[in-house]
Amino acid sequence: MTFAVAVAGASGYAGGELLRILSQHPDFEVRTVTAHSNAGQQLVDVQPHLRSLAHLTLVDTTPENLAGHDVVFLALPHGKSGELTAQLDADTLVVDCGADHRLESESDWAAFYGGDFYGAWSYGVPELLIGGVGSEQKQRERLVETRRIAAPGCNASTVALSLAPGIQAGVIESADIVSVLAVGPSGAGKALKTNLLAAEILGSASPYAVGGTHRHIPEIQQALRGAGAIDPTVSFTPVLVPMARGILATSTARIVPGTDAATVRAAWEAAYADEPFVHLLPAGQMPRSADTVGANTILLGLAVDAAAGRVVVVAAIDNLVKGTAGAAIQSANIALGLPETTGLALNGVAP
Amino acid sequence: MTFAVAVAGASGYAGGELLRILSQHPDFEVRTVTAHSNAGQQLVDVQPHLRSLAHLTLVDTTPENLAGHDVVFLALPHGKSGELTAQLDADTLVVDCGADHRLESESDWAAFYGGDFYGAWSYGVPELLIGGVGSEQKQRERLVETRRIAAPGCNASTVALSLAPGIQAGVIESADIVSVLAVGPSGAGKALKTNLLAAEILGSASPYAVGGTHRHIPEIQQALRGAGAIDPTVSFTPVLVPMARGILATSTARIVPGTDAATVRAAWEAAYADEPFVHLLPAGQMPRSADTVGANTILLGLAVDAAAGRVVVVAAIDNLVKGTAGAAIQSANIALGLPETTGLALNGVAP
Amino acid sequence: MTFAVAVAGASGYAGGELLRILSQHPDFEVRTVTAHSNAGQQLVDVQPHLRSLAHLTLVDTTPENLAGHDVVFLALPHGKSGELTAQLDADTLVVDCGADHRLESESDWAAFYGGDFYGAWSYGVPELLIGGVGSEQKQRERLVETRRIAAPGCNASTVALSLAPGIQAGVIESADIVSVLAVGPSGAGKALKTNLLAAEILGSASPYAVGGTHRHIPEIQQALRGAGAIDPTVSFTPVLVPMARGILATSTARIVPGTDAATVRAAWEAAYADEPFVHLLPAGQMPRSADTVGANTILLGLAVDAAAGRVVVVAAIDNLVKGTAGAAIQSANIALGLPETTGLALNGVAP
Amino acid sequence: MTFAVAVAGASGYAGGELLRILSQHPDFEVRTVTAHSNAGQQLVDVQPHLRSLAHLTLVDTTPENLAGHDVVFLALPHGKSGELTAQLDADTLVVDCGADHRLESESDWAAFYGGDFYGAWSYGVPELLIGGVGSEQKQRERLVETRRIAAPGCNASTVALSLAPGIQAGVIESADIVSVLAVGPSGAGKALKTNLLAAEILGSASPYAVGGTHRHIPEIQQALRGAGAIDPTVSFTPVLVPMARGILATSTARIVPGTDAATVRAAWEAAYADEPFVHLLPAGQMPRSADTVGANTILLGLAVDAAAGRVVVVAAIDNLVKGTAGAAIQSANIALGLPETTGLALNGVAP
Repeated sequence: MTFAVAVAGASGYAGGELLRILSQHPDFEVRTVTAHSNAGQQLVDVQPHLRSLAHLTLVDTTPENLAGHDVVFLALPHGKSGELTAQLDADTLVVDCGADHRLESESDWAAFYGGDFYGAWSYGVPELLIGGVGSEQKQRERLVETRRIAAPGCNASTVALSLAPGIQAGVIESADIVSVLAVGPSGAGKALKTNLLAAEILGSASPYAVGGTHRHIPEIQQALRGAGAIDPTVSFTPVLVPMARGILATSTARIVPGTDAATVRAAWEAAYADEPFVHLLPAGQMPRSADTVGANTILLGLAVDAAAGRVVVVAAIDNLVKGTAGAAIQSANIALGLPETTGLALNGVAP
Repeated sequence: MTFAVAVAGASGYAGGELLRILSQHPDFEVRTVTAHSNAGQQLVDVQPHLRSLAHLTLVDTTPENLAGHDVVFLALPHGKSGELTAQLDADTLVVDCGADHRLESESDWAAFYGGDFYGAWSYGVPELLIGGVGSEQKQRERLVETRRIAAPGCNASTVALSLAPGIQAGVIESADIVSVLAVGPSGAGKALKTNLLAAEILGSASPYAVGGTHRHIPEIQQALRGAGAIDPTVSFTPVLVPMARGILATSTARIVPGTDAATVRAAWEAAYADEPFVHLLPAGQMPRSADTVGANTILLGLAVDAAAGRVVVVAAIDNLVKGTAGAAIQSANIALGLPETTGLALNGVAP
Repeated sequence: MTFAVAVAGASGYAGGELLRILSQHPDFEVRTVTAHSNAGQQLVDVQPHLRSLAHLTLVDTTPENLAGHDVVFLALPHGKSGELTAQLDADTLVVDCGADHRLESESDWAAFYGGDFYGAWSYGVPELLIGGVGSEQKQRERLVETRRIAAPGCNASTVALSLAPGIQAGVIESADIVSVLAVGPSGAGKALKTNLLAAEILGSASPYAVGGTHRHIPEIQQALRGAGAIDPTVSFTPVLVPMARGILATSTARIVPGTDAATVRAAWEAAYADEPFVHLLPAGQMPRSADTVGANTILLGLAVDAAAGRVVVVAAIDNLVKGTAGAAIQSANIALGLPETTGLALNGVAP
Repeated sequence: MTFAVAVAGASGYAGGELLRILSQHPDFEVRTVTAHSNAGQQLVDVQPHLRSLAHLTLVDTTPENLAGHDVVFLALPHGKSGELTAQLDADTLVVDCGADHRLESESDWAAFYGGDFYGAWSYGVPELLIGGVGSEQKQRERLVETRRIAAPGCNASTVALSLAPGIQAGVIESADIVSVLAVGPSGAGKALKTNLLAAEILGSASPYAVGGTHRHIPEIQQALRGAGAIDPTVSFTPVLVPMARGILATSTARIVPGTDAATVRAAWEAAYADEPFVHLLPAGQMPRSADTVGANTILLGLAVDAAAGRVVVVAAIDNLVKGTAGAAIQSANIALGLPETTGLALNGVAP
């Protein structure tokens, strides 16, 4: 069957990417696209790369316009979806790409976001290990037949997928994790801010939200606790670099003393051996972010630094695909009983 | 007086940057430029940005061509300068921008480079703290009147300057340091390698030398030991990003338990308060690599992450200036008794 | 039915893009991938973005390895395919992405390429007007059931599609055409040349083959003659800019005196009204190259400059897709009797 | 002597570049920096690359704050300087980097800008030929002892310098000129517009003001008329490309029939043989924009396309230096009787 779909926030980068992927998905048909200030415009005038959707016109983001669809994807700024989703039908599959339904802890929400707390939905990272140390349970199970999905933060899911296997296998410590990410500015959305102007970003690298203030930190900790971490601490620094999309995350964690390099690597091999979208590269190879552009893949390179006593996991991901829109659609596939990989690309657009 | 200068390796990126800075230095006059495969060509045909040096022709890199100058700068691949410098006059000031004379430990040399070991020269990072914990002694003192200077590795000096104050002040631990650097491809030189092609780098971020193998690691450890570190361990990962020049280094270290944030910051403030080229930004500000382009500055942003128990120091630097050619000339200024800042820019070319 | 496919030159950029598109084409199955120096390696080690083809190993580019397939795509340097294709079966559909079979004129070949001349094949630009002034005939017709296709040069087809409607309609002059193109370095292939290094391209724009020497000029003239041009003259300048892929071509031609702006625009509207891949944007809109990345589209913006007496047509295209690999597959679809749009994306990967 | 300087509009890109150059100028001392919304902030907090000016605080842009200086540089949006400059002392040297005083024709002003017309000042392109066909007179003469200078538009001066020698020598026609420019987004200023966001510009090329609407067109025509053009027509298209600064302008003009290639080249050689900042590259060489970054140079490459009957002149320039701030300071040097090259760099910051 074909599912009728609405996308809210269709004028932004995440909304545009949802539409790009949905347009090549055999089981979804986009019926409604909504926006705020762009309502009334043709979609293709705002998203000129979406030629196949030239027939669609943006309408206001209201519960009425979103009603009557099988699936509603929300790509709204954080704080905007909570109130809206309360007015959507319980039988409708709602996938929120914003932050409003990711965190389980109200105090984390208050500390990092603030405003009304709407509670956590099923977290949209199917491959994430969630049963604690020694368990092979994955988040995928919790997505089956759910009607409420919180797509992950792009940075958070990247770091969580990078380290969860080591925690679940008991080969790395969850204290003193350090992650530094090279990220493209599309992750910050279309907001008009001076620091996001092209002249500021071109030829430059610059960090933001340094020193424990980034909103994805509690989301990472929550995910790692699911894999078995006790009180994980994460030093997390994103660095804006001059590429439109993509994340290259370097995450390091202390190896549990006495664990040899082969045992370390084996944890990741076991966790992802059968995953269609998570690829551990052979020893000695490292990923490039460009190899994931447009694809729903995350590529992992792993090295053991015996001298430093740390494992280094480098992850490449397209922040708009596997980091956001692809993850949302992959999770929706599961919730709807479709093959999980339907409509999602394995091959990146490179160079 | 005017010092007669020769630059060996003038066709490469480091050589070109030496020439650009030297051309605006009031006390140096470039007499000779040497190269290998480009010998015989006009300098300006190989380095078309150096219009003021259009009268110079590249000659072979030989001891004879380098003889008879007051100062010789070498910008050669590692392993190429050691034998050459042995044939230069002891009274000539020789500044080697390669790696051959940086490491004091022959075993480090053997492990990370290999080939003949030529021994360490005065290390060209004047601001580096070297007297151990509690000492305010700096490398500057060792450069006075020396005739042999080893300009630092760009990554190594960036990380060393980022963390030395905390070690010297006893506020951070030297075990379990983690540094991840966004670096531009000019740091890799003009070598014809597929992974350095524009189509490979544009729109992509990619790590290299992951897992403890990068050659700048022993150089960092050596520098940090000078500041008082006992057996420092450093997880070090450089990530190539699409900007021609620049480094944005994120370095984190564990704070010694019980040290408050103000005390941490005070260590860096004290170390660099009077330094003309090292600038600690006010709390809450973080540097951008573009702000240092063409300048001999290193800009530091510091944040204390209490939850993670780590200080995060982000450093911006131009790999070719303060990272290489500017450091070389700053050190030469000291060795020759010139004002240290002569001929070196404070202001970056941004945006 | 499924057609068995071989791709020669699979380690390069054009070869990689052929494989990326073929992998999502429902009627093609890639059986064989060949290369020169990379033969023996896993495809995915050379093209790490092609995760779905991880089972393929590169073999030598020989007639034997290419034999036995329904379709052979060649992505070889010019001069390399002519001899090879002579040894392939006449019933095999051969699509050459190189230049060897594009030019009809042996003297043009001699003047711009040199070496053995192998003669022209069916030119792989289905939408190109070919019947001269007043005719609506298109190249598409000549591709039906052909077994030999010459995929176009990316720059040449971009300029030809930009201007052919005006010539066919008799509204622009074919003398004194001027085209200037911003092009990404992937169009130059993976060749190891200093001017293609990332440090040379980042932050810089630079022209090449200036002054009538570029090899695509005779190909443009040939295409425009098909549309009815008598002795077209083309000033053609490509400018390398820092984006991995994409062409933004600005082409201008003198408007035939007395022709009003509406008549000019009507020529393009009529030519492309029913084309799935060629989109004329509404008056006042101009295309961006990013909107075509990964898509088989060419987006055209048109403005009439009455003061200058010229029409300006700006075309955006992905050099590797509609410029090369997508054009090849679109043409192959026609030759094989498949729906022309099969397996080809309409939506670009933007931002 | 040292001249006291004020810079209005110091928080923008042009203002920042004025300050960067002024800070290394031996005869100027920046006393006052003004801004609009940033008034009250430290200059270095808004322009973090200007470390040497960390002592300056931004004040409001008022006649009172600008009074009492020997030189006032204005870097304001067009339409903002006319009223202001009427209130500045007649003895003060005022250099306007905006458009308000460039055009001599009130009707051109009305057609391309609109609003109050304030009349033309001495045009700040010293090397421009102005005496008509056969004359060697240059704009430099008109700058001596003037107290009002209009710094040129970056695109306009680039095209004017590219073609004036051919017009003055009578070797090219002034009808049917075509210029297409690859330009970096810093030329558009710090305005918060969606199309200037990094995610929109990275990986993309896009034109703007196509079809005869760009405001620099009448300025180009005015400059070419000075060189002797009768009714010049210019098809002018700027293309935004992903580099922070720089222009690479490809300008073509029809060669007067019967003129041989050597005669064409000789016109440019004669015009610029003694110019310190305008460099005609040897035949066969073409410029790159990066070679002019931070320098006050314009590099020209020239090719004769006999088949097309056109000369192609490619010009590389830093839009913020020779295109704006450097031109302003070079012209101020002349007006004040200083050596023209004082404080201006010849060597670009490349790569």
